[in-house]
Amino acid sequence: MSILTSDNIQAIRCAVDHALDQAATVTLPNFRQPLAVANKAQTGFDPVTEADQQAEQVLRDCLMAALPEAGFLGEENSRPSAGDAIAALAIDPAVQSQLTWVVDPIDGTRAFITGLPLWGTLVGLNDGQDVLFGALDQPWTQERFLGWDGHAECVHQGGTRPLSTRDYRPLTECIVQTTTPDMFTTSTTQKQFRSVRDAVAMTRYGGDCYAYALLAMGGIDAVIESSLQPYDIQALIPIVHGAGGVITQWSGEPCLDGGSVVASANAKLHEQLLTLLQNAHTDTT
Amino acid sequence: MSILTSDNIQAIRCAVDHALDQAATVTLPNFRQPLAVANKAQTGFDPVTEADQQAEQVLRDCLMAALPEAGFLGEENSRPSAGDAIAALAIDPAVQSQLTWVVDPIDGTRAFITGLPLWGTLVGLNDGQDVLFGALDQPWTQERFLGWDGHAECVHQGGTRPLSTRDYRPLTECIVQTTTPDMFTTSTTQKQFRSVRDAVAMTRYGGDCYAYALLAMGGIDAVIESSLQPYDIQALIPIVHGAGGVITQWSGEPCLDGGSVVASANAKLHEQLLTLLQNAHTDTT
Repeated sequence: MSILTSDNIQAIRCAVDHALDQAATVTLPNFRQPLAVANKAQTGFDPVTEADQQAEQVLRDCLMAALPEAGFLGEENSRPSAGDAIAALAIDPAVQSQLTWVVDPIDGTRAFITGLPLWGTLVGLNDGQDVLFGALDQPWTQERFLGWDGHAECVHQGGTRPLSTRDYRPLTECIVQTTTPDMFTTSTTQKQFRSVRDAVAMTRYGGDCYAYALLAMGGIDAVIESSLQPYDIQALIPIVHGAGGVITQWSGEPCLDGGSVVASANAKLHEQLLTLLQNAHTDTT
Repeated sequence: MSILTSDNIQAIRCAVDHALDQAATVTLPNFRQPLAVANKAQTGFDPVTEADQQAEQVLRDCLMAALPEAGFLGEENSRPSAGDAIAALAIDPAVQSQLTWVVDPIDGTRAFITGLPLWGTLVGLNDGQDVLFGALDQPWTQERFLGWDGHAECVHQGGTRPLSTRDYRPLTECIVQTTTPDMFTTSTTQKQFRSVRDAVAMTRYGGDCYAYALLAMGGIDAVIESSLQPYDIQALIPIVHGAGGVITQWSGEPCLDGGSVVASANAKLHEQLLTLLQNAHTDTT
């Protein structure tokens, strides 16, 4: 049972929309700017890190203005500043104090650097047990993926459509995505990843957070990743759940803390993937 | 010396723009359509192959109407049909007969299937020695990359900007992209690929034809691929050249026939990559 009412959620959505719009005014002018990137080598100025930090500051200011009693966890360790001019939401301070914003201003920094429009700004709101609201914003393609309370939708250039994962199909017909084979850094996780790769029809690389959006849109059957931080994954959990998918650690435990994560289009496939991953793990120990 | 005048090129550009606009009316309605894709398993109807074939037919009709005496090479082996209603261009039939359209209606079919907006429609025009005009169209993001005669530009949602590759930087600072490590299918090509991957700062996966667009935009330093067909690469050659890059086979030979291809942001880097690839090849033989 969520501690937020549906009115609370709508107010939170408006606050998150505002925060993401503001963050995009920082990230977009730094995307695909070869001259600015060239500066990095010559002057030590890193425009991507700069954009990352500035965007997180903007998100922090907006989101903390909306819920002044909530906690905040960001990738860039920003600190409170002057704050945003928007008013706090009418949500009981005792409820607010149980909530934490979890933010990654630019998930997929390497995609960002190379000009690939598959990075995203991630905002999640958790109550310590579960993520109650999540957003993935890709401002260059103008796609905003939102999930809360069993619903997920995509707003694209003004239009909104519900998100829905794929129905079950056998492993041999499945498409799995992972950002890079290089993210599996131990021999055990490599073996576990290979056990999935060898069982499915197709493995695709690249995508970062956008892979979870493809899953929620019904384009792929699963995402399998490792070495994730809480701010890499929390915002995506309600989007995957809301679209009908399942997302856990490879052990089957909740994945709020990140680590090795598998997201599947449906519960039946998820069971099969967990079995594959756990069998491959047992074989090596 | 090109056999086409600059007036010829402008006329060809208009014909290609028209053909790509028409092809997009076939590809876009089939992109991100989970219901249509679900049909495939149940009925044997393959909407992606269908879109691929229909788009090639549209391209053939438009392009052959513009240059009736030219040749045509497409991925889908389409045949001449009723034709497009546009008039033939005012280009000498003797010149036309030396030209061939080379077309891939959906390059990156796997990206297309999964919903990733990194596939492209490719159109090149060669004179048997060189590709005189090339276009990569990504209709969902509304990006059209064009190259001819030492120029390259991107048209995005109505605006046009010139394309320019990165300046030289040492290998240890370079970003290299390849569609998937699985495209290197022999032990020799795997070893050659690893010799590059181990020498550079970062290797990114995914992208198909879009990787060459990132190169032309200055986002990455090189693309390295294998097992390419002529229709996978010809349209991209004038875009890479026009943006200031170099593109050849791994042997340094021209890459009109596809095969193992490397594209670099500048001549100095290209020399270094060719040396790496050839040394790794020599080591294994």
